[in-house]
Amino acid sequence: DLALYEQIYGVQHPLPELLKDALYGLPEIYHKEIQNAKIVGNPGCYPTSILLPVLPLLANRLIDPSLIISDSKSGVSGAGRAANGTTHYINCNESINAYKVGDTHRHLSEIQEQMRITDGQFGEVLFTPHLTPMARGILSTIYLDFAPGVSASQITECLKEKYADASFVHYVSHSPKTSDVSCTNNCHFNVYFPKSGKKIIILSVIDNLLKGAAGQAIQNMNIMFGFNETEGLV
Amino acid sequence: DLALYEQIYGVQHPLPELLKDALYGLPEIYHKEIQNAKIVGNPGCYPTSILLPVLPLLANRLIDPSLIISDSKSGVSGAGRAANGTTHYINCNESINAYKVGDTHRHLSEIQEQMRITDGQFGEVLFTPHLTPMARGILSTIYLDFAPGVSASQITECLKEKYADASFVHYVSHSPKTSDVSCTNNCHFNVYFPKSGKKIIILSVIDNLLKGAAGQAIQNMNIMFGFNETEGLV
Amino acid sequence: DLALYEQIYGVQHPLPELLKDALYGLPEIYHKEIQNAKIVGNPGCYPTSILLPVLPLLANRLIDPSLIISDSKSGVSGAGRAANGTTHYINCNESINAYKVGDTHRHLSEIQEQMRITDGQFGEVLFTPHLTPMARGILSTIYLDFAPGVSASQITECLKEKYADASFVHYVSHSPKTSDVSCTNNCHFNVYFPKSGKKIIILSVIDNLLKGAAGQAIQNMNIMFGFNETEGLV
Amino acid sequence: DLALYEQIYGVQHPLPELLKDALYGLPEIYHKEIQNAKIVGNPGCYPTSILLPVLPLLANRLIDPSLIISDSKSGVSGAGRAANGTTHYINCNESINAYKVGDTHRHLSEIQEQMRITDGQFGEVLFTPHLTPMARGILSTIYLDFAPGVSASQITECLKEKYADASFVHYVSHSPKTSDVSCTNNCHFNVYFPKSGKKIIILSVIDNLLKGAAGQAIQNMNIMFGFNETEGLV
Repeated sequence: DLALYEQIYGVQHPLPELLKDALYGLPEIYHKEIQNAKIVGNPGCYPTSILLPVLPLLANRLIDPSLIISDSKSGVSGAGRAANGTTHYINCNESINAYKVGDTHRHLSEIQEQMRITDGQFGEVLFTPHLTPMARGILSTIYLDFAPGVSASQITECLKEKYADASFVHYVSHSPKTSDVSCTNNCHFNVYFPKSGKKIIILSVIDNLLKGAAGQAIQNMNIMFGFNETEGLV
Repeated sequence: DLALYEQIYGVQHPLPELLKDALYGLPEIYHKEIQNAKIVGNPGCYPTSILLPVLPLLANRLIDPSLIISDSKSGVSGAGRAANGTTHYINCNESINAYKVGDTHRHLSEIQEQMRITDGQFGEVLFTPHLTPMARGILSTIYLDFAPGVSASQITECLKEKYADASFVHYVSHSPKTSDVSCTNNCHFNVYFPKSGKKIIILSVIDNLLKGAAGQAIQNMNIMFGFNETEGLV
Repeated sequence: DLALYEQIYGVQHPLPELLKDALYGLPEIYHKEIQNAKIVGNPGCYPTSILLPVLPLLANRLIDPSLIISDSKSGVSGAGRAANGTTHYINCNESINAYKVGDTHRHLSEIQEQMRITDGQFGEVLFTPHLTPMARGILSTIYLDFAPGVSASQITECLKEKYADASFVHYVSHSPKTSDVSCTNNCHFNVYFPKSGKKIIILSVIDNLLKGAAGQAIQNMNIMFGFNETEGLV
Repeated sequence: DLALYEQIYGVQHPLPELLKDALYGLPEIYHKEIQNAKIVGNPGCYPTSILLPVLPLLANRLIDPSLIISDSKSGVSGAGRAANGTTHYINCNESINAYKVGDTHRHLSEIQEQMRITDGQFGEVLFTPHLTPMARGILSTIYLDFAPGVSASQITECLKEKYADASFVHYVSHSPKTSDVSCTNNCHFNVYFPKSGKKIIILSVIDNLLKGAAGQAIQNMNIMFGFNETEGLV
């Protein structure tokens, strides 16, 4: 969305006429569309970790879209190459903190737009990013509510089926660590159902520099050019 | 509670007859009672970080007790002195993961019991602890709902007033880092109100080895023996 | 050497009759011999980082063999998989220390034996290993003396020529970091000549888990079976 | 020395007329002189770790001054507050490297000047500083030669006697870790005598931010103003 883009990034879009040909490059969701796309926009790192497990649940109306909480933890490479106070070793070593708390991170609108496209509703995402003392990796701890009448097994079945044949996205049976996917293009997630029955917790990990950035870009390129999706990535 | 203790810790309580004289030693909440206590039980590290900002809100019925989410991140010293797979440098370095997801951590019942004592209601706490690659420190990112009719300013006023004269607990105006309170007996917290108006986010940090353990024990001892509360701690 | 082995490792050698067929598997030094070897012993991690730049100088009698100092720094994976006090995160995080100072590390005799084989002299190696707060990597800072009449350019020419066509060992022109070779089978080294003219300083880095362990084993296997030396490693 | 200062720091000294009143503030060596000093120059962090164990040996002519090797490892705070490529978390995390190898570090001349003052000879120091992935701390691994006819026990006696009553400098009996002295004004060192009898190895640790900087400055101030040397530091 042009208006949204210019509001969030604070710059005029240099080539708005291209937007109609541009596609959101989350390959496990838009694989067919990417095959024929002229321009693919690579998703942000945080949105990738959140949308991969959440969008199939929204598309199948298994969760309540009105409020999704993602408490996300990123390594310092997520803060960029710039040398500044935030990335100085002494400041980020041996400490964790949240930033842009509330609703001001530019990745937030990217997440909300995809959610709206998926289920047509204007849900809210409460997204709390954290700077974690490690080089790479994102863990999103996602808190969801069941849609009325939905059972835990419907949730797990939906996600298992969706990713049964995926090359890079895997529903695992343990609590995933960011190091499990470090230096890979994988996303690992698991789903928990607290016994009170009130919430669903999804833990989702990626390497922000691969599935969250360059790796996914290569995956998109492979799809656009008809190569095997995993070329150069495994 | 004896039955709860034996269920959670999996051992018979060695001295159940002392329980009636034992007090939960959260000094900023139970200062008067600790002055006359014979036995003080030192709170767990996670509960301390959560209960300090949450209990005053519950006591004043400013938040909905039915579901409180605490997404908590702890340094590796929280995993104890034992050398095992979890605490091996190679396993916890450069990685973050959640553990005991859902509702199985022994600190959970400690939190829930205090909440029930405070407002008389049986609320639910969704508590997700995370092992973070740093030596010390806890950050709890707490998601709360307003009680009906309550405004943001009532929340902030309640907490500012409660801790206006506290030696160790401070309502700060920035996003607190665990290193802000490292090697101190302090708890720093801040409160955020996302503009959608739906949730309250509290960020609360302590040093798990001081305010979360030995420091708070000394603070309790100081109070029990009539010393200045800060003796040996600042 | 059987007697030396049993003294250092403190166990009886289980198959001493095989020793005569066993070869020291440092591929850049013993490439031809490995091609026909029945049994190859994989070098230790520290010796690999030291011997690769030092043995060619000894073989050409360019350095004084009577005393070689190697001040070596290893990541924690070098301390092994065992969970104990040494590998507990809290003990090795944010601290560096030397261990087995003087002459008691089992890698020392491995280094000295290779040096003796190379130039026929019984030189001394002063080897000081250090435990460094990082997962992987070894940096050896090596202090050498010129053999009489040898010039700096003879040293650099010898090493440049030796490794001109090597797949994994590279004479670099900057101060090498362990992260330069992390997750690779490479050894990078550089040579410095302090202006007083008294000593030669070599900085040599490897990844202890690859060139210092499994990577080198694969390289040896490739050579033994006539595969391309780099198969599976680049 | 004015000329040396201007050469090394690359700036004109702003107040050369004060140099005659200025003293090198290593309190354990120059305690009496500091009591009456008008101006005290605080030693650098690396020189402090090296000179404390080395100067008494030089003053008593127990070691050969012609070549002293110090292989020193510093945490990232030693690289200063400036946010740049060197101090970016991603560059210094999980890696160790030497820098200013050979003889170009400005601390080198400070070390050499003190050595010359102590024993009147122009010795050489080979000083190799390393950037280590930790926030604070310095470990200097120092390689020395015996002066002719000197025994190991003379070395240990000299240092034990020198520091028997020192508040902050302690001859320890284990391999010191930088974390042993973290957040203190202490220097811990131990001395090793490899069985070949050729070299002496001293391991010396300080916290570069305290004994290597502000802590030592406070110690000097305490001495200048007649306060107890440890005021504010223990």
